[in-house]
Amino acid sequence: MIEWVDKEKVFKDPVHDYIYVKDRLIWDLINTRAFQRLRRVKQLGTSFLTYHGAEHSRFTHSLGTYETMRKVLSHFERNFGWPTDDRVRLLALCAALLHDIGHGPFSHTIERVFQFHHETWTQRILIDDPEVTNILQRVDDDFPQDVADVIAKKDKFPLVVKLISSQLDVDRMDYLLRDAMNTGVTYGTFELERLIRVMRPVGNDVVVKKSGMKTVEQYILARYFMYSQVYLHPVTVSSDVLLRHVVARVKTLWDREESVFLPAELKPFLSRKAEQISVAEYLELDESVMNYTMQRWTRADDPILRDLSDRFVNRHLFGVVDTRELKEVERQTIRELFRNCGLDPDYYLSFQTATTGGYHMYHQGITLVDESGRDLGDISKHSSLVRSLSPESKFRIFCPKEVLRGEGKYKPIRGWLDAMKE
Amino acid sequence: MIEWVDKEKVFKDPVHDYIYVKDRLIWDLINTRAFQRLRRVKQLGTSFLTYHGAEHSRFTHSLGTYETMRKVLSHFERNFGWPTDDRVRLLALCAALLHDIGHGPFSHTIERVFQFHHETWTQRILIDDPEVTNILQRVDDDFPQDVADVIAKKDKFPLVVKLISSQLDVDRMDYLLRDAMNTGVTYGTFELERLIRVMRPVGNDVVVKKSGMKTVEQYILARYFMYSQVYLHPVTVSSDVLLRHVVARVKTLWDREESVFLPAELKPFLSRKAEQISVAEYLELDESVMNYTMQRWTRADDPILRDLSDRFVNRHLFGVVDTRELKEVERQTIRELFRNCGLDPDYYLSFQTATTGGYHMYHQGITLVDESGRDLGDISKHSSLVRSLSPESKFRIFCPKEVLRGEGKYKPIRGWLDAMKE
Amino acid sequence: MIEWVDKEKVFKDPVHDYIYVKDRLIWDLINTRAFQRLRRVKQLGTSFLTYHGAEHSRFTHSLGTYETMRKVLSHFERNFGWPTDDRVRLLALCAALLHDIGHGPFSHTIERVFQFHHETWTQRILIDDPEVTNILQRVDDDFPQDVADVIAKKDKFPLVVKLISSQLDVDRMDYLLRDAMNTGVTYGTFELERLIRVMRPVGNDVVVKKSGMKTVEQYILARYFMYSQVYLHPVTVSSDVLLRHVVARVKTLWDREESVFLPAELKPFLSRKAEQISVAEYLELDESVMNYTMQRWTRADDPILRDLSDRFVNRHLFGVVDTRELKEVERQTIRELFRNCGLDPDYYLSFQTATTGGYHMYHQGITLVDESGRDLGDISKHSSLVRSLSPESKFRIFCPKEVLRGEGKYKPIRGWLDAMKE
Amino acid sequence: MIEWVDKEKVFKDPVHDYIYVKDRLIWDLINTRAFQRLRRVKQLGTSFLTYHGAEHSRFTHSLGTYETMRKVLSHFERNFGWPTDDRVRLLALCAALLHDIGHGPFSHTIERVFQFHHETWTQRILIDDPEVTNILQRVDDDFPQDVADVIAKKDKFPLVVKLISSQLDVDRMDYLLRDAMNTGVTYGTFELERLIRVMRPVGNDVVVKKSGMKTVEQYILARYFMYSQVYLHPVTVSSDVLLRHVVARVKTLWDREESVFLPAELKPFLSRKAEQISVAEYLELDESVMNYTMQRWTRADDPILRDLSDRFVNRHLFGVVDTRELKEVERQTIRELFRNCGLDPDYYLSFQTATTGGYHMYHQGITLVDESGRDLGDISKHSSLVRSLSPESKFRIFCPKEVLRGEGKYKPIRGWLDAMKE
Repeated sequence: MIEWVDKEKVFKDPVHDYIYVKDRLIWDLINTRAFQRLRRVKQLGTSFLTYHGAEHSRFTHSLGTYETMRKVLSHFERNFGWPTDDRVRLLALCAALLHDIGHGPFSHTIERVFQFHHETWTQRILIDDPEVTNILQRVDDDFPQDVADVIAKKDKFPLVVKLISSQLDVDRMDYLLRDAMNTGVTYGTFELERLIRVMRPVGNDVVVKKSGMKTVEQYILARYFMYSQVYLHPVTVSSDVLLRHVVARVKTLWDREESVFLPAELKPFLSRKAEQISVAEYLELDESVMNYTMQRWTRADDPILRDLSDRFVNRHLFGVVDTRELKEVERQTIRELFRNCGLDPDYYLSFQTATTGGYHMYHQGITLVDESGRDLGDISKHSSLVRSLSPESKFRIFCPKEVLRGEGKYKPIRGWLDAMKE
Repeated sequence: MIEWVDKEKVFKDPVHDYIYVKDRLIWDLINTRAFQRLRRVKQLGTSFLTYHGAEHSRFTHSLGTYETMRKVLSHFERNFGWPTDDRVRLLALCAALLHDIGHGPFSHTIERVFQFHHETWTQRILIDDPEVTNILQRVDDDFPQDVADVIAKKDKFPLVVKLISSQLDVDRMDYLLRDAMNTGVTYGTFELERLIRVMRPVGNDVVVKKSGMKTVEQYILARYFMYSQVYLHPVTVSSDVLLRHVVARVKTLWDREESVFLPAELKPFLSRKAEQISVAEYLELDESVMNYTMQRWTRADDPILRDLSDRFVNRHLFGVVDTRELKEVERQTIRELFRNCGLDPDYYLSFQTATTGGYHMYHQGITLVDESGRDLGDISKHSSLVRSLSPESKFRIFCPKEVLRGEGKYKPIRGWLDAMKE
Repeated sequence: MIEWVDKEKVFKDPVHDYIYVKDRLIWDLINTRAFQRLRRVKQLGTSFLTYHGAEHSRFTHSLGTYETMRKVLSHFERNFGWPTDDRVRLLALCAALLHDIGHGPFSHTIERVFQFHHETWTQRILIDDPEVTNILQRVDDDFPQDVADVIAKKDKFPLVVKLISSQLDVDRMDYLLRDAMNTGVTYGTFELERLIRVMRPVGNDVVVKKSGMKTVEQYILARYFMYSQVYLHPVTVSSDVLLRHVVARVKTLWDREESVFLPAELKPFLSRKAEQISVAEYLELDESVMNYTMQRWTRADDPILRDLSDRFVNRHLFGVVDTRELKEVERQTIRELFRNCGLDPDYYLSFQTATTGGYHMYHQGITLVDESGRDLGDISKHSSLVRSLSPESKFRIFCPKEVLRGEGKYKPIRGWLDAMKE
Repeated sequence: MIEWVDKEKVFKDPVHDYIYVKDRLIWDLINTRAFQRLRRVKQLGTSFLTYHGAEHSRFTHSLGTYETMRKVLSHFERNFGWPTDDRVRLLALCAALLHDIGHGPFSHTIERVFQFHHETWTQRILIDDPEVTNILQRVDDDFPQDVADVIAKKDKFPLVVKLISSQLDVDRMDYLLRDAMNTGVTYGTFELERLIRVMRPVGNDVVVKKSGMKTVEQYILARYFMYSQVYLHPVTVSSDVLLRHVVARVKTLWDREESVFLPAELKPFLSRKAEQISVAEYLELDESVMNYTMQRWTRADDPILRDLSDRFVNRHLFGVVDTRELKEVERQTIRELFRNCGLDPDYYLSFQTATTGGYHMYHQGITLVDESGRDLGDISKHSSLVRSLSPESKFRIFCPKEVLRGEGKYKPIRGWLDAMKE
């Protein structure tokens, strides 16, 4: 079943130094159009507008996730004799490599409006893209569906699912290190080799030696810091708000049948439901299309679309005010104030709640074991640090900076905002 | 004349840790459209197809060049009392920040076909872009032209020119470190702080203490290694060849008045001369436009354009054969062989000479001085290592891999190539 | 008052890249015998027996602490105009440079037995070492005492004291990064430049901008991880136990007037009280003396001293058992069991409680302020992460590994230990 | 024959992240007295007096050399099926681990005076130290001698010899990276993984793929830069001169039967020939002994010994003058001038020639091969860079700085030196 490449292949990588490929299957998957397309989807969406170094793509992250899985499997094979069969090994490697293949442009920001639910699309591509599916079927006919089921967290291969998607998965291990390196921060740093060394497969679970608890804490904290300092940075959220408003405006114009520039690649997403869009159509859409289109919209007839697009493309972002949590009636009041100043609050105002995920035990906690393998319960039982990580919410209002400065007609808004400040 | 920002501003950077801005002028230049556009031009063009990490933009490099200049000036001010006036300091900082502002999409690869001579455009933008020029004029009316003259290496401000563009310039210092970091190689590594410390301004020249000669050698070698291992990597050159052929094909189709998809942003470059293109038109063009357009061309009617674009977008690149230098008659022979196989050699064959620049003393050598400041002549007089760096040329043929494998009708080509191998 | 060195001097440093010296005072202090002696005292005592890379000295750390202070002062001067006078600047720099000058060999481990209370000795050296004191007096006659008072945390220069010794001091900033680098772990990593940037001097306190809270958390966590993973690593504690037992045995032999090799440098510490030891005598003692002496003791007549020294020098360390906290009566029982096996529990058994310091608000908490400088109270009010860091204690028993394996006569001990296990 | 440790053991390392041990043989060798003693011998001798970070020991380097060999063997096994038998694998690993076991204190500096010829001692220890030899004999009776023969470059196992000691050996690979990291310079940086990947075993030689030539160049240059910037740094050479003079003075005093402090460990080296010194005696000597003894000598009766020791211990080093090569008669003249000033030139003057080794093809050049394995000859045939590295000599005079300043009676010396300056 297993076919090797002629010689061990490598990719030079800034995080892992080298990424090693010896299975022809993996090599061929990397060379598909669907996978190469990930070069045109940024790993961190609009974060490059905050941290200029965050220009890396999902392509590099996907290779890194594969390599991390390869390292975990090598440790498991050397020290615990798992996996015993090559099909499971390949399943784990393919799922790691392809876990993000369904991501569209700026998915986390605009997928709801544009029907990009990326996990669904990942599964569709795995079983419906002629090129990808064909390669996977070389293992056997059920293989594409099995990879898709791992992505869908179905429980046929629970250990593989754990490694792909849990509190302790190879996806997160790679992105924390990679995003930290590219943004230039150390917040996402943790001891990767040591973390892998304290993991072990036990039954259907991946558990951790008690003596490795602090290493797991460091890794959990890396995520905590990256969320607050990078992923939910107010400037990034502000960029997301703008992008979402741009897209919402286009949708409104389209629904009203007003004239607006739309490339062929984008039309299906406005006119049809996700189920009616083919895998081939989906794969046409990437950030080259979106970026080009937004640049065109900076010259749109519609003044709102033109203005919002210009703000996004040329980085004249909305400003932010930290507030306490607002009641609905308060939100109505400020919306009214915006309307009075001639600003449509649907496009020039946004209430955002940014929630840093704490540590969740349910479904996917991290179990500790002692030297003899005895179950010691979830890490949260043992670590006050982990328990302290309950979700934290921040309430923020985003709107144009000229409004925040309270110039001229915006003075009443400024006054109201000051009163709401945290 | 000098206006500070309210508080010292910083950008987090993966190479320099922080980039410090205290001049309002710099801050405002960064926020112009023309400068933000550099986020949409990759620093290393097509290199990401070789080193997947090379996804960084000219925006990040331009900030880094500014920061490197800031460090050099700080050293010069602390230890040698230069520059004495703030206008020269600002001139150096602005020239560093803006030195790449005229780069178009994949400039090094396609600027000849598409009229992007980037240094000319940099100068035009500096004196003709309303936003940029206006900000520069805050210093005084001559300031935009002075910055442009520095870029053009005119000799009014020889020390600033030296620092921007010579064998020992801040541009190169930043890009070597940044390209190395992003590709994940150490070839471009050198001792930045020490290099700066051994530099000193003397008259119209920037010279180096003899005791720092080895540090300069390390820096010169960093360039040597980056050229051979990264910039002139055969896979990158192969990508460049494809891209150039795509663009050449479009030009041919346009000249023949055949139907081909062309966005508004690209038309001026096919129909008019550079001088007739406005700065505003020029700034519309970036890699979003080019990438989107090439994706469209993967569905073009013309089979050659369709095929070449598909190869580029989906990374099915040409293969390479190292040869000895070929005579014109040999080139004709192989072109004929291609034609006989039904492959148009204009698009499916390329002879490339990749030349690693050696060290050039003329005009911009590096002068050593002893402790007392006495001129010891050019570094090449003292360093056999530097003298050994004469330009090296590699001769390579690029064509489709199926041809190189010599399958079926391509067998004769294969045979001919084998005979030419180095 | 201020005298500069001829040219800016630098030291190449693996943590800070360069350490900059421009004051002749600092330069001359570095060249004193008392400061050079710090090269012969390891920064992490016995940790090199756990992490082989931990071979760095207090000399390198002291230079790094100076450099960190220099960076903090540069930020404070640039952005807040403090300190306004050069004497305070020098006071801060000297205190940072000299804060560890009183450390003796393996101080943290054996200072109680050998009268090395290092902070007291630091103060004595500052005001009593002819070389050091003379240099400091160049500023003025009170200067040596002022530096000593800063070390003693007296409140004449509260801001300087804060920077030298608090939850947010330059000592800790340097040692976390340096110890992490040398041991090869990332646990001590944090954002040094950013941490410095969010600090500000307000009245008598150094406070932190609220927006920098997460950066402070990262730094506090760095300490937490370094304590549990490095400083209190059981193998290091085990090495400390052995060393302490070696020294205790020598003291007993000396008190019993038994013959034991003792170099002249060590005798004062056994025969006199600290107050009766001169600064000159104190400075004779360093790790060269201690290490040489211990090697000699591996050939001592006394079998216990010989055995313990051999275990330390050749790294045959005691093993460890994690237990619950033991009552005095339990401790007596196990001591008795050791005695029954012919092992003197004073030398072959040790009960250790390793306590990771949590975050303490009292005296030296970290105050947050908002943008306008308003006091928001201690960071522990705002951060559940910081609050979760209450001190944690681990109870451990150390004794020879052959005992832990429970071979032969040691079987009963093994049984008893198993029952006590955590 | 092969016995594994219970679980894969690891050492945390700042250069390689982790060092992996699975053979019980290796584990047991690390725990011998002879190997642990390497913790008390600094890797770079007196270099810490120039680069304060250079405090690392031969212990850490020896572990790193082992790990580098392990990586090379893993690559060779995976891709070329060599070594086929476990005895050769163990031979290579043991030779790498133990290659420096015969180093004495400051060996490179003082081994001639004190009979430490370290390679000879390495071989003697391998076959004569009861602990080490016993462990090696577990493989078979000939094994200790075979390891010793590899160290002696005998040709029974030519491939292993190549990997241990040639232009492309694992010793150098580790020390370049480690010394660079600890001194804080980048000069020794090179692409370790890639270098290993382009190496291949062919017959009795380790050769390199032509496509890897630049990587080899980078590695050869790393050595070139480390020699000139670190290993032959004038301050380090100055420290070496002092140390050698200290030892020479002691030898003179001993020969004259004058009273001088001498610890038991040192006496054999003054009174007997190397052949008459036992392995046990040899292993007693390390840098703790030497450092302690030198501190004692700072209080010696002999004024020359006292002064020189004090200069070394407290870092009041000799200064340096770069000269042209001096004739014997010129040397005599300056020696006479020193004598006239009351300075014994045997102890206060030193003529040093520091020669940076170029690249030598003879015996141990680096052979390139093409893709098909065809021999292309030595790298120096192909690389002008490598050819440019002919040995370079620097001529330097070392003497007390007060002499160099030419104060008072030293004025004539100063004048003479100025005339000799390069």
